[in-house]
Amino acid sequence: MEPGDAARLGPGWAARALPPRLLLMLLLGRGLRGAAAASSYGAAAEDSSAMEELATEKEAEESHRQDSVSLLTFILLLTLTILTIWLFKHRRVRFLHETGLAMIYGLIVGVILRYGTTATSGHDKSLSCTQEDRAFSTLLVNVSGKFFEYTLKGEISPGKVNSVEQNDMLRKVTFDPEVFFNILLPPIIFHAGYSLKKRHFFRNLGSILAYAFLGTAVSCFIIGNLMYGVVKLMKIVGQLSDKFYYTDCLFFGAIISATDPVTVLAIFNELHADVDLYALLFGESVLNDAVAIVLSSSIVAYQPAGLNTHAFDAAAFFKSVGIFLGIFSGSFTMGAVTGVVTALVTKFTKLHCFPLLETALFFLMSWSTFLLAEACGFTGVVAVLFCGITQAHYTYNNLSVESRSRTKQLFEVLHFLAENFIFSYMGLALFTFQKHVFSPVFIIGAFVAIFLGRAAHIYPLSFFLNLGRRHKIGWNFQHMMMFSGLRGAMAFALAIRDTASYARQMMFTTTLLIVFFTVWIIGGGTTPMLSWLNIRVGIEEPSEEDQNEHRWQYFRVGVDPDQDPPPNNDSFQVLQGDGSDSARGNRTKQESAWLFRLWYSFDHNYLKPILTHSGPPLTTTLPAWCGLLAQCLTSPQVYENQEPLREEDSDFILTEGDLTLTFGDSTVTANGSSGSHTASMSLEGGRRMKSSSEEVLERDLGMGDQKVSSRGTRLVFPLEDNVRLPAQSPE
Amino acid sequence: MEPGDAARLGPGWAARALPPRLLLMLLLGRGLRGAAAASSYGAAAEDSSAMEELATEKEAEESHRQDSVSLLTFILLLTLTILTIWLFKHRRVRFLHETGLAMIYGLIVGVILRYGTTATSGHDKSLSCTQEDRAFSTLLVNVSGKFFEYTLKGEISPGKVNSVEQNDMLRKVTFDPEVFFNILLPPIIFHAGYSLKKRHFFRNLGSILAYAFLGTAVSCFIIGNLMYGVVKLMKIVGQLSDKFYYTDCLFFGAIISATDPVTVLAIFNELHADVDLYALLFGESVLNDAVAIVLSSSIVAYQPAGLNTHAFDAAAFFKSVGIFLGIFSGSFTMGAVTGVVTALVTKFTKLHCFPLLETALFFLMSWSTFLLAEACGFTGVVAVLFCGITQAHYTYNNLSVESRSRTKQLFEVLHFLAENFIFSYMGLALFTFQKHVFSPVFIIGAFVAIFLGRAAHIYPLSFFLNLGRRHKIGWNFQHMMMFSGLRGAMAFALAIRDTASYARQMMFTTTLLIVFFTVWIIGGGTTPMLSWLNIRVGIEEPSEEDQNEHRWQYFRVGVDPDQDPPPNNDSFQVLQGDGSDSARGNRTKQESAWLFRLWYSFDHNYLKPILTHSGPPLTTTLPAWCGLLAQCLTSPQVYENQEPLREEDSDFILTEGDLTLTFGDSTVTANGSSGSHTASMSLEGGRRMKSSSEEVLERDLGMGDQKVSSRGTRLVFPLEDNVRLPAQSPE
Repeated sequence: MEPGDAARLGPGWAARALPPRLLLMLLLGRGLRGAAAASSYGAAAEDSSAMEELATEKEAEESHRQDSVSLLTFILLLTLTILTIWLFKHRRVRFLHETGLAMIYGLIVGVILRYGTTATSGHDKSLSCTQEDRAFSTLLVNVSGKFFEYTLKGEISPGKVNSVEQNDMLRKVTFDPEVFFNILLPPIIFHAGYSLKKRHFFRNLGSILAYAFLGTAVSCFIIGNLMYGVVKLMKIVGQLSDKFYYTDCLFFGAIISATDPVTVLAIFNELHADVDLYALLFGESVLNDAVAIVLSSSIVAYQPAGLNTHAFDAAAFFKSVGIFLGIFSGSFTMGAVTGVVTALVTKFTKLHCFPLLETALFFLMSWSTFLLAEACGFTGVVAVLFCGITQAHYTYNNLSVESRSRTKQLFEVLHFLAENFIFSYMGLALFTFQKHVFSPVFIIGAFVAIFLGRAAHIYPLSFFLNLGRRHKIGWNFQHMMMFSGLRGAMAFALAIRDTASYARQMMFTTTLLIVFFTVWIIGGGTTPMLSWLNIRVGIEEPSEEDQNEHRWQYFRVGVDPDQDPPPNNDSFQVLQGDGSDSARGNRTKQESAWLFRLWYSFDHNYLKPILTHSGPPLTTTLPAWCGLLAQCLTSPQVYENQEPLREEDSDFILTEGDLTLTFGDSTVTANGSSGSHTASMSLEGGRRMKSSSEEVLERDLGMGDQKVSSRGTRLVFPLEDNVRLPAQSPE
Repeated sequence: MEPGDAARLGPGWAARALPPRLLLMLLLGRGLRGAAAASSYGAAAEDSSAMEELATEKEAEESHRQDSVSLLTFILLLTLTILTIWLFKHRRVRFLHETGLAMIYGLIVGVILRYGTTATSGHDKSLSCTQEDRAFSTLLVNVSGKFFEYTLKGEISPGKVNSVEQNDMLRKVTFDPEVFFNILLPPIIFHAGYSLKKRHFFRNLGSILAYAFLGTAVSCFIIGNLMYGVVKLMKIVGQLSDKFYYTDCLFFGAIISATDPVTVLAIFNELHADVDLYALLFGESVLNDAVAIVLSSSIVAYQPAGLNTHAFDAAAFFKSVGIFLGIFSGSFTMGAVTGVVTALVTKFTKLHCFPLLETALFFLMSWSTFLLAEACGFTGVVAVLFCGITQAHYTYNNLSVESRSRTKQLFEVLHFLAENFIFSYMGLALFTFQKHVFSPVFIIGAFVAIFLGRAAHIYPLSFFLNLGRRHKIGWNFQHMMMFSGLRGAMAFALAIRDTASYARQMMFTTTLLIVFFTVWIIGGGTTPMLSWLNIRVGIEEPSEEDQNEHRWQYFRVGVDPDQDPPPNNDSFQVLQGDGSDSARGNRTKQESAWLFRLWYSFDHNYLKPILTHSGPPLTTTLPAWCGLLAQCLTSPQVYENQEPLREEDSDFILTEGDLTLTFGDSTVTANGSSGSHTASMSLEGGRRMKSSSEEVLERDLGMGDQKVSSRGTRLVFPLEDNVRLPAQSPE
């Protein structure tokens, strides 16, 4: 019986000694070996014929060994990547980011696996029998009196059934797509939420939300429609060999709209580029990942009533929108609730005496968000993101100093490993994935579409946002955002999740190429682009660790480094200066939207004091009639240190001081004569303080007369932590 | 067709909509949902009938949701455990260890699941077809034109096939035994190796090896033979309903010989009990885990040629011994080699500038040991143990300060989570495991056998060891070691690995009960036992962290706390005092076996300088003709800091000073007049220094006249890190 005939022959089944998929079997399953071992262990007890069991066991052990080798390949790839990254950082090479490097190594190994190994065929045994009309999650198979349990792995496209003869090793390194969603993405996304610099994030919250929600939707629809045009063109030209519907195009728009400017942001971090631009890009990319996940599943849920899937069905459309809103808000709630519960637990117990327990609790609670959301039918990854943000905003303040660094480091390592694993897998997948569909027309169309989609997303939105923003998003920022439309892990994970149909395979291939192109080209071009767009670098934020031994790394590309003194930890100084609420509310009004102001004062007056040890005592903010409750909820520490925030929190908590004082904010100009400037004047290093930061902004935007001499300037980036160089001027 | 008939009907197969196993599907698989989603995503593209797909998808999502709920149960259990541990530590309750607590919570939830939930039946669909005579690792099943891939999960005992009607939830919380071996044990074992206090470990190396190898073998054979007697008895009485061979008994002896005195050691740690006793117990338990694994697989490999498995087959026996030696030495080599490679990489790159990269590399290399060993057919868990020891001995010295704490904390958290997960799972398994075989005779016999086995292991070995040891193992130490024969995670993991046959199920149930009993009773009885046996507590080792702000917590139960001053960081002082090699070799001779001395000097003169930044320069230790090589391998740091060891290493590197100076060692008496004592005389706190520690030893052994007043003394343990109390005397 030909496997291909199976579809026509009706119910039937085929069994092969396909090697089990990589990570699954190795990490958790090893089912086959277990089964073989079971037969072997039981051999003494059951006087059955041992020969075939031994054969099965041998085969199982061989398979297990191959699994280990495949995973070892990945680990060696990562090790190699780490060593090369070190070399690059050591030599201050910045044209290639670690993710790009991981992809290159993946590619090389992929080529070796593809062309270097012989195409050993699996033991192809094809058997048939009758079965009912549906798939079961578990099969029990009786083999000469022994029962074996099989678990459903997933559907296989009929085409793949024919490819049994393909290379064993290639199949081994191609593992379950859901691994990306359930193992690798959560730590990446949680870390993104947990390490969000809330000060700047919240200051630009409105714009970030607009970019993430509106922008992603716009981008999705524009790309979807453009691609539909491309697909129509392909049909006319005769390049398309299978079905490709409008919903497929929209789905492609959704998955490819998840930007992931990891390389750009890494360089921003190294160069200490403009914090607001950083916040805009980072915030957008974090949130649009969530939007893209939910959007893609809503598009999948868009199933018009009839079989004609072209027609627009209003009911189905609104159902999709409803699903989008439902999943998004549900996931958001899950994440926030778990974060709040963790904050309450860490506040009202003295768990901070035992950092190990505290860290373990933190980890478990954060993980439970994922499970809780999945259990309720929401999206775990999205919930984890908001959990991370909540944990950083509230729980972090309750943790002991050791737990703070522990949790940060733990998720940093997990994030690092997961991200580099995904990128090296991407490199590998280009050669080892079995069902690539390279369609030049589609690929070129996709590149044009994502460019246009990004443009249609950034420029009009920025225009409208600038109408409302006091601190305008300049042209150079807009160009930089346009330029930073990289695609990364999320687009890949969404694309690989389903590669069953022809259309999906074409999308997957295209997505892979887009990720390669954007990571390599845009990643390498970031430094010249920053210089060309005249975006300030060398702005360092006062962070928890180096609050004490601060050395300013300040230089603007092509501009005298002494011209623009950076902000010192004045935010903290001012914060102590005007601790009273009345003085604050006054200033907030001038700059923030009322909704944000409302949220902010609610957060500051009620949520912070309830959930953390900081903020004003509840007894002063709550009405008198709930005095008892207020006393119960307020932690004794609050009364002791009336200065509302502890020093370590300054980077993590949104405060009034933060809102007004960060450098480059036009608000400072509006309140130019406030006490804040007095504070920032007292800077170390003898640098001249500009009285109006708007001047700086203008110079940023318009007069680029000093720029000519600055092209090609060599940027020296500060080494991390241990080797912190003194301030250097560009040569 | 009845599922039970399948065995008689010959080849055939049964399929049920069994919910997929817990962790597997949830963490990595989600295969069914993936498949369902695939059908759903593809629905627009393929105009197929969508109804049955929707039904499958619904079911898949339901199953996935249930999976999430099950895992959530475990996470909530762990969270509850953590909170209660905190409460216990906070209130200084010491009769129940966290592992015991985790088991209790597991038990409670197990009872609720067992009796509180209704026995919902799975969708029982039983189908049959012909199949070949062997099991395949993967099945392809064709369901109305769609192909579904199934992966072999393992063999199911025929009895289990009948239990389809059993509770879904119970089945859900019972997950793949290999998870314990491949996910949960490695971090536990690695952490044990990595956190080994090498100073005391190496000083007692000979005894530890004897206990671990000889002792475990003796214990295994004694328990095995005793149990064989019990089994014979059961056969006579008619209590045994199925086969139970001699090899099964030996297997039981092997799995139950893996001691895991986690609760005892935790209390030792809290009370700072005698370090040598700690080293003996800890070292033995770490190594005998490895011995037990390898021993059990060797026994399984013992397959006599004929079918009469009772007969002793010399060839098979020697084959088993050969397998034991092969697997053990292979795993050892794997672990050591990976550790050495990591040490070289961290030494010759400047990776320590980037702690994140360093930590990631360290983690990956340690993990690759596991895979490498598995790929080569050795035991990953054993390899990981020796890798941990090597990493701590060499690589740790090359790491940056941040990476040191990062790696320690990372593995500490992983260890903590894995251990508590296993113990709470044990509690759960007592009620949710479906195939318990409670045999009172067997259980009572097993309790007697492990008691006798432990006694036959400890006392004779100690007697022989004492013939060779200068620092004798006292009677109270021997009793304490006898008492500390707890069984824990390793015995459980070995027992649950295969529960297919009747004999194995009986073993599993018995093992579970032994673990419960020993952890609760012995764990709770440790503090009274220490007091009763008059073992000194309150001995604190100078550790890296609190080298500076040292406050001695010293009290001996029932003895004036000022009587025996503890060792200060004199090991370091002396170390600087006699840095020359000649002075050292001299002293070493008097106390160590020649083999150990040989190893030590080789390690100190060649391995340390090659692999780390410490030790004497190679140019001085290697012969002149390899001068160039020596210069290449010696790190420049060595020449700079001629004091051979850095302060932070003192706890981690075996040095001469450590060998001679730790308190209570009779060697100090032998060299009583050496400079070391002058150093230790200058102790803070005005405590009187005993000139001869042998006196202390004697008092420990014999004259217990002060003991009467000391029973029931309340011990106050020092809170960890943050809340360090000043020295307290017993009330």
